[in-house]
Amino acid sequence: MRIFEQLESEVRGYVRSFPVMFDTAKGSLLYDEQGNEYIDFFAGAGTLNYGHNNPIISKALLKYIERDGIMHGLDKATVAKRTFLQKFYDTILSPRNLEYKVQFTGPTGTNAVETALKLARMIKRRSNVIAFTNGYHGLTMGSLAVTGNTFYRDESYGIRNNSAFMPFDGYFGPDVDTIEYFRRFLEDASSGVDLPAAVILETVQAEGGINVASNEWLQQLERLCREFDILLIIDDIQVGNGRTGTFFSFERAGITPDMVTLSKSIGGGLPLALLLMRPELDQWQPGEHTGTFRGNNLAFVAAAESLAYWDNDDLAEAVKYKGEIMETELNSIAEKYPELNAKVRGVGMIWGLELPRNGFSSEVSKKAFENGVVIELAGAEDQVVKFLPSLTIDEKMLRQGLAIIDQSIGDLLAHKREMRTGDTQGSTQGGAQDNETLVRFKSA
Amino acid sequence: MRIFEQLESEVRGYVRSFPVMFDTAKGSLLYDEQGNEYIDFFAGAGTLNYGHNNPIISKALLKYIERDGIMHGLDKATVAKRTFLQKFYDTILSPRNLEYKVQFTGPTGTNAVETALKLARMIKRRSNVIAFTNGYHGLTMGSLAVTGNTFYRDESYGIRNNSAFMPFDGYFGPDVDTIEYFRRFLEDASSGVDLPAAVILETVQAEGGINVASNEWLQQLERLCREFDILLIIDDIQVGNGRTGTFFSFERAGITPDMVTLSKSIGGGLPLALLLMRPELDQWQPGEHTGTFRGNNLAFVAAAESLAYWDNDDLAEAVKYKGEIMETELNSIAEKYPELNAKVRGVGMIWGLELPRNGFSSEVSKKAFENGVVIELAGAEDQVVKFLPSLTIDEKMLRQGLAIIDQSIGDLLAHKREMRTGDTQGSTQGGAQDNETLVRFKSA
Amino acid sequence: MRIFEQLESEVRGYVRSFPVMFDTAKGSLLYDEQGNEYIDFFAGAGTLNYGHNNPIISKALLKYIERDGIMHGLDKATVAKRTFLQKFYDTILSPRNLEYKVQFTGPTGTNAVETALKLARMIKRRSNVIAFTNGYHGLTMGSLAVTGNTFYRDESYGIRNNSAFMPFDGYFGPDVDTIEYFRRFLEDASSGVDLPAAVILETVQAEGGINVASNEWLQQLERLCREFDILLIIDDIQVGNGRTGTFFSFERAGITPDMVTLSKSIGGGLPLALLLMRPELDQWQPGEHTGTFRGNNLAFVAAAESLAYWDNDDLAEAVKYKGEIMETELNSIAEKYPELNAKVRGVGMIWGLELPRNGFSSEVSKKAFENGVVIELAGAEDQVVKFLPSLTIDEKMLRQGLAIIDQSIGDLLAHKREMRTGDTQGSTQGGAQDNETLVRFKSA
Amino acid sequence: MRIFEQLESEVRGYVRSFPVMFDTAKGSLLYDEQGNEYIDFFAGAGTLNYGHNNPIISKALLKYIERDGIMHGLDKATVAKRTFLQKFYDTILSPRNLEYKVQFTGPTGTNAVETALKLARMIKRRSNVIAFTNGYHGLTMGSLAVTGNTFYRDESYGIRNNSAFMPFDGYFGPDVDTIEYFRRFLEDASSGVDLPAAVILETVQAEGGINVASNEWLQQLERLCREFDILLIIDDIQVGNGRTGTFFSFERAGITPDMVTLSKSIGGGLPLALLLMRPELDQWQPGEHTGTFRGNNLAFVAAAESLAYWDNDDLAEAVKYKGEIMETELNSIAEKYPELNAKVRGVGMIWGLELPRNGFSSEVSKKAFENGVVIELAGAEDQVVKFLPSLTIDEKMLRQGLAIIDQSIGDLLAHKREMRTGDTQGSTQGGAQDNETLVRFKSA
Repeated sequence: MRIFEQLESEVRGYVRSFPVMFDTAKGSLLYDEQGNEYIDFFAGAGTLNYGHNNPIISKALLKYIERDGIMHGLDKATVAKRTFLQKFYDTILSPRNLEYKVQFTGPTGTNAVETALKLARMIKRRSNVIAFTNGYHGLTMGSLAVTGNTFYRDESYGIRNNSAFMPFDGYFGPDVDTIEYFRRFLEDASSGVDLPAAVILETVQAEGGINVASNEWLQQLERLCREFDILLIIDDIQVGNGRTGTFFSFERAGITPDMVTLSKSIGGGLPLALLLMRPELDQWQPGEHTGTFRGNNLAFVAAAESLAYWDNDDLAEAVKYKGEIMETELNSIAEKYPELNAKVRGVGMIWGLELPRNGFSSEVSKKAFENGVVIELAGAEDQVVKFLPSLTIDEKMLRQGLAIIDQSIGDLLAHKREMRTGDTQGSTQGGAQDNETLVRFKSA
Repeated sequence: MRIFEQLESEVRGYVRSFPVMFDTAKGSLLYDEQGNEYIDFFAGAGTLNYGHNNPIISKALLKYIERDGIMHGLDKATVAKRTFLQKFYDTILSPRNLEYKVQFTGPTGTNAVETALKLARMIKRRSNVIAFTNGYHGLTMGSLAVTGNTFYRDESYGIRNNSAFMPFDGYFGPDVDTIEYFRRFLEDASSGVDLPAAVILETVQAEGGINVASNEWLQQLERLCREFDILLIIDDIQVGNGRTGTFFSFERAGITPDMVTLSKSIGGGLPLALLLMRPELDQWQPGEHTGTFRGNNLAFVAAAESLAYWDNDDLAEAVKYKGEIMETELNSIAEKYPELNAKVRGVGMIWGLELPRNGFSSEVSKKAFENGVVIELAGAEDQVVKFLPSLTIDEKMLRQGLAIIDQSIGDLLAHKREMRTGDTQGSTQGGAQDNETLVRFKSA
Repeated sequence: MRIFEQLESEVRGYVRSFPVMFDTAKGSLLYDEQGNEYIDFFAGAGTLNYGHNNPIISKALLKYIERDGIMHGLDKATVAKRTFLQKFYDTILSPRNLEYKVQFTGPTGTNAVETALKLARMIKRRSNVIAFTNGYHGLTMGSLAVTGNTFYRDESYGIRNNSAFMPFDGYFGPDVDTIEYFRRFLEDASSGVDLPAAVILETVQAEGGINVASNEWLQQLERLCREFDILLIIDDIQVGNGRTGTFFSFERAGITPDMVTLSKSIGGGLPLALLLMRPELDQWQPGEHTGTFRGNNLAFVAAAESLAYWDNDDLAEAVKYKGEIMETELNSIAEKYPELNAKVRGVGMIWGLELPRNGFSSEVSKKAFENGVVIELAGAEDQVVKFLPSLTIDEKMLRQGLAIIDQSIGDLLAHKREMRTGDTQGSTQGGAQDNETLVRFKSA
Repeated sequence: MRIFEQLESEVRGYVRSFPVMFDTAKGSLLYDEQGNEYIDFFAGAGTLNYGHNNPIISKALLKYIERDGIMHGLDKATVAKRTFLQKFYDTILSPRNLEYKVQFTGPTGTNAVETALKLARMIKRRSNVIAFTNGYHGLTMGSLAVTGNTFYRDESYGIRNNSAFMPFDGYFGPDVDTIEYFRRFLEDASSGVDLPAAVILETVQAEGGINVASNEWLQQLERLCREFDILLIIDDIQVGNGRTGTFFSFERAGITPDMVTLSKSIGGGLPLALLLMRPELDQWQPGEHTGTFRGNNLAFVAAAESLAYWDNDDLAEAVKYKGEIMETELNSIAEKYPELNAKVRGVGMIWGLELPRNGFSSEVSKKAFENGVVIELAGAEDQVVKFLPSLTIDEKMLRQGLAIIDQSIGDLLAHKREMRTGDTQGSTQGGAQDNETLVRFKSA
């Protein structure tokens, strides 16, 4: 690892949480250089909904490279891009009666968000944009302005690009209707919140702590936007692509956003980002927003292949089925360890286990990794363990991963009890035993 | 092409200039679906310094995918990333005695620029940044603030993030020392230009019209920065990676920037972006700037392979040799058609042919494409034909491409003369002849 | 009036509401050129708490001018300024155990606000400031950023200087604790509201519609500020100087702001503005915030005289007594005309009669003016009739003014009823009668 | 002075330079409490063009107050305001064929500037404004954005409101045409300087160091503004009102600005500020920019009286005559003390003596004050002694004041020479002698 410590910036993050040298990967399994195996409950922060190195995708990539399919095409027309566009239209847009136009932005989520915000402002001739508490939309200056977390901000960055924050669904507890709060600010011309060009939100806040907006709240928000002539932008970068059980996360609420940002899993694991927009919003001049890697043709190939998962309902049903397993098991964990005061939140195959106990979620992630599961945290204080397996994980591995988390929590709590009673020796033995129990998940 | 027109946003650009369906590519040749062949003098806007689908790179990618090398790794440690870092250190940094730390940003140039600006502001606790006339650094809000071209801006985007523009080398003609202009503003505490955290510039402005900063100017700028405690950021996204004859474009001036942004060709054709920074500037907290596709491992594989071109001086010498051919031929074109008042500017293998005649450069690009060469324009008014072939192009193909441009210009001028004299028939015949002459560049 | 229409900007306002040529004034009476008399319930928007051309003040001004007391002194030390400072210390600060330092800003309220915001940001090294819904703090760019009313804003003004708006006391109805709302945003590092340098508010929002913050709310806000290390700025420009019954409006709540802005009545009717700050906040460098008319010595003379009203409790008691008359009479009006759905709000001698009926408040103001009372409106929709007589008005005139308003409302409602029943003739007669009844308020 | 030190903010400035207690004033003489007399070469920073307590003005004020003329009128129509408007039209606008409309802003210069900038942006729908190096337009946030001096800025204030700075006339020396520089930035759509709504400038930069724009430069700037559809705003706050020899400072160049800001001397010594604008620019809605003290009626009275100075050419001729005396005497001082490397700049009755020697200008001001002259400094480094006597000063007193400065410089230089030769005793005696020589300027 020395070269990383010597050469890579201090900004590096996950390499600290999971300090091994990964080498290969397949489906929901990661392998380090020594051949140790890890179940991946992180899925590339939502990029690997179809698993690591999905064989269908890999096969298509191999074929494409072998025949010298153009790899880098800027925004020129290519066969690979055409195939993707047609597949996206046929499989995703057309069956859902969605008449969006597609813009390929630089292949990062933040670029899709920046593009949406620029376009919304340009169309409405208003600079203000409303975001929501705990929202996360990226870290370039335009996106950062609508990202809630102070950790990413610095006074020296200068002013936020015009934005204001409204409370997300449930922000003041279950009994407060936060749409009414928002409405009050909009109706009052003297509220200090200028009529925005757009609102931007995730239907399930992932980085923000797995906060699920209810269908009713989303519907009310859509009505509010229509009433005040505000564009509704759904950032579906992390929770789109089937994560919540439908291709778009907003389908469950029956709403139709004016714009949708997609990235992460849309590229089948390779860098790709899209902005969808209602056709009448497509008021760009040619070349007005551009970027070198809009034409990442390997990603078009991977993306077109991955969309085949949406040719029928199998994946959607699998997500429903496995999501229920996750919900059941997590609730069972919460009940089993009442001292955690754990809260379980989620939908589809994105679930959070909030552990208010200070720092305990980090210990769980660390322990789970020792035991062979890669799992990350979310929330402003990293207080939420975030369950984000590939949608294609098989049931057995999903249950194994959940069992490891369960056991990791149990061991940590037992160790804490022992620490308090002074019997530290037993704990160490327990740890050894754990590793034995879990050895089947590791190859060597 | 219908699906593009129907589904893709109006923002699409190059597809309009080169309206064919590209399929495969190899080296400096592009092929459309019908098998027509095009010489690429655009090189993916600087992304393909090592050519399309470079066989060494393709071979490594195939091998990596076949053995299920991890494709998407966030910023976890992977074998592919380690290999790249080690290769970058051994081949690029160490031989040049450059002690930079490396930050992997989202794999777009604009993300590297945003990262540099955030870090510079944070370190210096100053929000102002100085950019230069005709500078281009990207289109997300932070980068857009330091991009000169009004075309990309809109009042509704709100205020520029603190930035001010100074004249680039030669902006007021050859006799005005623009560093002295800049110095005057810095020395005068009442000039209205706040002491900046950083200056950011390209040593050769590519999009800005192939404006080459002289070595002396760059050296003076570096001294000015040192004197006033300003960070010097070189944006080497388009003209780094050997484009000017050395790996970094600033090597010719013997300066050492505080930060360097790299993207485009650093990924060997796949999306990758880096920020290099002096070690003492690496003041990030873990995770303070992040992004999903920092861990595009296919790009690490491609990048590591492409760096092998820098194991010896062969490529640098080839660039020098072929650059001289370009310079000679372009000067010859300028002399041959004095009515163009053409200006030739460039260094290494990036050259511009400025054609002040209104709209003529567009006609040249169009005609050249008909004749089998992909070539793009630069400058605020698209008045510069931009010669940007792959560094690995073979001499013969380079000369052929240049000959086609020459002939295209000749034909266009002849046609114009004919139009003025009313003899339009001859022109059409001339056009036909052209196509015949050039038929060897097309496969069918 | 022709010269006004010909020469003065369309921005002129009150001249439209009260379209007569005023000439002289004394106490609570205004006289137009024809000698008509008007009871002033507007008091120069809070500038004339001690009445028009208060004889004590006028006498002192005459004496000062006659002896050639220096009129314009920039911020040089003058006898008049010293007298004011000493009087302010002895009469206002010292008896209240307030250890503020005094900064003379440009003699407008907005300048005092701008100064407070600059200082707060400078001290805390944070650019964000929190203001409240319906707050009004002035229209220069810094103050405008914390002023709620959209009417005063334009997209072209560019971005707000970093500010965010929180709900004022009662904004979501009587049952919602808006301090808890605010606290939630502060406690959550991911709320999108950066920790502010300061909060700024009026304890009674005057322009915002006579919204009175409760003592408990103000105390909670003070505690919140202390807890999060936020400076508390009370803008006492309109409701300080005894308007609410104590010299500072915040005395009723027992809180001690970090900074206080004063203007309007502090100058005894002449332009003057002050910023008070806790001594440890006085971190200005000499001359760092400056302005030509800080040394308006006539205002110092007037101000020192007017402070004599605070040598004893007489004025405070009179405000209490007359404030109760206002409250009683306004409640009586509200009860008398239930069809108005009127709401009565206020404290001390600032009271609002909210008339939700669309545009009716404007009719009341117009009718009252015809009947000899100058009264203005407040609230985002001008829906509140704002009662702001001089504190020194005598009881009889106060009651007369209130009676005229009562009668004006009655006449308007009667007229509306007649309009609906078609009997318009009676209305005209009623109007004539009104004028007769009220003739005693007009001299000719 | 104790109360000032105890109670007044550290921001206080002139009280430090002139640490006596001023009491009365008349014409160009100031008197302190002990009856000491000072010649005023500062004129209230340009507020007292008609002298302190001008007898004509004082007489009118006394009469107005005695008859209870309304003192505070917001923007209601008053007889005093009408008289001023009529007088301003008849005496100033009409004879110059200027068809401006008049807006009364809050009575500070900075408020007039803020108003101009808001209006310009609103009309042109562009947020950018161009200011000039060393420009000074006030310290509220909008004006501060176009004020050059870093001393007044702080990072925490957040971003400048959209502004960019261009070099003033002569900024790069006499041979560089700075209008051509500006033009280059405007013509180049890729310069990074957005087309501005307006340019704002002083024709003679006062605080900036007495920098006089040439007539040709001003004419070129006007043409540039017309060509690019940019509004031309002349800030005539300090150098209008006859300071340069004509009522408006721009008359000498024969240009017609789109807007003009006036303050300082326009109020005859009392707080008043105006914005003049071409009638078609008067696009305000009623009340859209407002402020309490727009109706400072004492200032209207004083202003109307002072405009009588413009009924004939006497004052203009006197300014010409006395201005030539100033120029002659200052050049004579510069020649007499060649070791100063002094530069003399000015026009009309505003002159600067630039003394590059570090800190020497401060010593001159201090010494002059000891010798009975109040004179201040200008320029980013306070390197310019600024001669700004009242326009109505009599010739003898003007010459006396200049002689005192001359002698003060001479004494300081002599003292320095003595210090270098070790003979410090003589210097002290010299100082005593000085005071004797100058005793005639002090009453006691």
